[in-house]
Amino acid sequence: MSDPVRIGLLGRGTVGGAFAELLAERAEAVEAATGRRPEIAGVLTRDEGDFGEILGRSDLVVELIGGTDPARQYVLDALRAGRPVITANKQLLAQHGDELFALAREMGVQLRFEAAVAGAIPIVRTIQESFGVTEVSKVFGIVNGTTNFILSEMAATGAAYEEVLARAQELGYAEADPSDDVSGADAAAKMAILARLAFHTPVTLAEVPYEGIETIQPDDLAYAKELGLSLKLLGVAERRDGGISVRVFPCFLYQGHPLSPVEGPFNAIMVEAPAITEVTMSGPGAGGVQTASAVLGDVVSILAGEAPVHEAREELPIVADVTSSFYLHLEVADRPGVLAQIAQVLGDNEISVKSVVQRGIGDDARLVMVVHECIESRFATALEEIAELDDLRSAPRAIRVIEKEFV
Amino acid sequence: MSDPVRIGLLGRGTVGGAFAELLAERAEAVEAATGRRPEIAGVLTRDEGDFGEILGRSDLVVELIGGTDPARQYVLDALRAGRPVITANKQLLAQHGDELFALAREMGVQLRFEAAVAGAIPIVRTIQESFGVTEVSKVFGIVNGTTNFILSEMAATGAAYEEVLARAQELGYAEADPSDDVSGADAAAKMAILARLAFHTPVTLAEVPYEGIETIQPDDLAYAKELGLSLKLLGVAERRDGGISVRVFPCFLYQGHPLSPVEGPFNAIMVEAPAITEVTMSGPGAGGVQTASAVLGDVVSILAGEAPVHEAREELPIVADVTSSFYLHLEVADRPGVLAQIAQVLGDNEISVKSVVQRGIGDDARLVMVVHECIESRFATALEEIAELDDLRSAPRAIRVIEKEFV
Repeated sequence: MSDPVRIGLLGRGTVGGAFAELLAERAEAVEAATGRRPEIAGVLTRDEGDFGEILGRSDLVVELIGGTDPARQYVLDALRAGRPVITANKQLLAQHGDELFALAREMGVQLRFEAAVAGAIPIVRTIQESFGVTEVSKVFGIVNGTTNFILSEMAATGAAYEEVLARAQELGYAEADPSDDVSGADAAAKMAILARLAFHTPVTLAEVPYEGIETIQPDDLAYAKELGLSLKLLGVAERRDGGISVRVFPCFLYQGHPLSPVEGPFNAIMVEAPAITEVTMSGPGAGGVQTASAVLGDVVSILAGEAPVHEAREELPIVADVTSSFYLHLEVADRPGVLAQIAQVLGDNEISVKSVVQRGIGDDARLVMVVHECIESRFATALEEIAELDDLRSAPRAIRVIEKEFV
Repeated sequence: MSDPVRIGLLGRGTVGGAFAELLAERAEAVEAATGRRPEIAGVLTRDEGDFGEILGRSDLVVELIGGTDPARQYVLDALRAGRPVITANKQLLAQHGDELFALAREMGVQLRFEAAVAGAIPIVRTIQESFGVTEVSKVFGIVNGTTNFILSEMAATGAAYEEVLARAQELGYAEADPSDDVSGADAAAKMAILARLAFHTPVTLAEVPYEGIETIQPDDLAYAKELGLSLKLLGVAERRDGGISVRVFPCFLYQGHPLSPVEGPFNAIMVEAPAITEVTMSGPGAGGVQTASAVLGDVVSILAGEAPVHEAREELPIVADVTSSFYLHLEVADRPGVLAQIAQVLGDNEISVKSVVQRGIGDDARLVMVVHECIESRFATALEEIAELDDLRSAPRAIRVIEKEFV
């Protein structure tokens, strides 16, 4: 029998604990698959263990602490000591990816991170290996389960954001401090990682603008239903105008869109390329054992000696001003000529209307419309002009829409 | 610059031609990713090229001929000569997998086959690598695009099977001789391969019972719609009673099932395991460039030195008699007591009814019901007894149902 492989485990929270358990349970299967039996060489927690000592006893290091400090230093030290590293830490990779990947390449050791994006869904391996030489045009999807749960519940029950958030916290789908999830920051970190892999270009969190779901109103969801739309928090990374655009924003989808039936805390990611048309992967985006399962897959890959270290071999510029289709919600005085005024502003900015729903409310009216794809900066200008119209009763609200309809 | 990697290409049909083109187009990307530039060393077609000579000039062999003869001999010869082999040949793997995998292991060379199942969807890599040490409980889905297109069209238009098949042939979604697809044989070969990978156990095509879609009637689809069901040709491989069951059959799904929105020539596969809950992957199941793209992914993996050869490390028995839920379509005389007679037969065989739709047609009635999960052999017995009832006007028709409902 060959020597066991000794794993230094940093962190024993939900994922760390689940990983230790899963590893013990599947040790025999790992040995059957790779010829080497894995064992935990030491566990570092806030209260116990010494990093240097654990590193000295380990053949590979699994980092499940989260956050950038001290995780960054531990991962750098482990790589510098020639140890392959597996991490589930999206913030670390999204903020310090360049430094970490460069060191891993320099040392010739693996840095794997399947668990950093979309839990049990093997999207990292798929983009990095299966589609590693495919000219990917777009990677997009639902990469945050907390917000997808909240939006699903709001749509199903008509309840307000705050109420549904409280329910999500009770059920364990949202954390006590949910700001990272609901602001879109968590999704932005994941999209920075996916964009880096898909486009072989360095992308960091700071380059990913994001919007969250905190301002979504129940009546946006109600009107959207009339228009046949469902709302998702989307991460989108795509080639645009010779560069790439990477963003996170709430977005309406027409029925029939492959992402539209994805409900609750699930994630789903689509990859588009001329050579593959589109491939969609969905599954649980979080959860202790599901995330641990992705870590275990990385352990097996390292033992099997697979896969080179990621290298950013392109330097694509980030394109800021892109085109989008929008849903627009306006409360206006119910008077002749109001719609004409608004249509005029849109027309002046070269924005054309796809559909309108108008409904009276007392002396006022609600005007809900979807406009065709237009340059976002033009739409922002139009929105400012509309906000200044005398007949407007409250601030206009706008949400992006993926225009593609299905029959 | 290092030496180029020379690829011997066997076959230049739809996939072979697309592969040669894609390889030329992405040669630079392959070199950037792996350090080696690929080039075609020779092409073997029915009319030109000599296998031995091409093999002598090749570093790796891509087999895209299809069929088992002479493909089997070519692949065996290539492996014996120490060349890694990539194949898209599901029949070859499903019928001669044991022989081929054993030789690849003996020679210590890779045998890769992502393109053999579900076109551009990286299901082989996912099951073999990401979930390689996961205790998979079930792999199932839509693995034949031709039949999914036909069933989608039948449901949408109400047209008869023969008519829709003719349309599929015109559109290139079905071959001139469609029997391999519509009989379920093609799907059975793919399920034999997936079952082998998921359960690490030798499974051959001969062990996979299959049913096709040739006998599906438009009114089955119409009644099913009333019951909220959609029809798919499913391949199912699952652990049952200490062994595994691998089968292909048409099956109704309730709305909300992740596979129920998969329409047209797409494929979709779900993997279930306690540690991952469920992961679903969907995309184009066929097509020249899509399949070629999967072959190219395998080329990159071989150049990167990834992944061990598959090994059947278990010997799970095939379980024949499993449980299923069924849709049952009966034409009976419209007389008192008929339903009671049928219910009696079902009850005697320990089969309970979940829902019934009854409709008068002249002096007769149509009785469409869904029964809860029951032992299949018991259901077959009940079906025989029902067929012998005096009041039955035509042969009973039965189709399996996945009972899980979604709200």
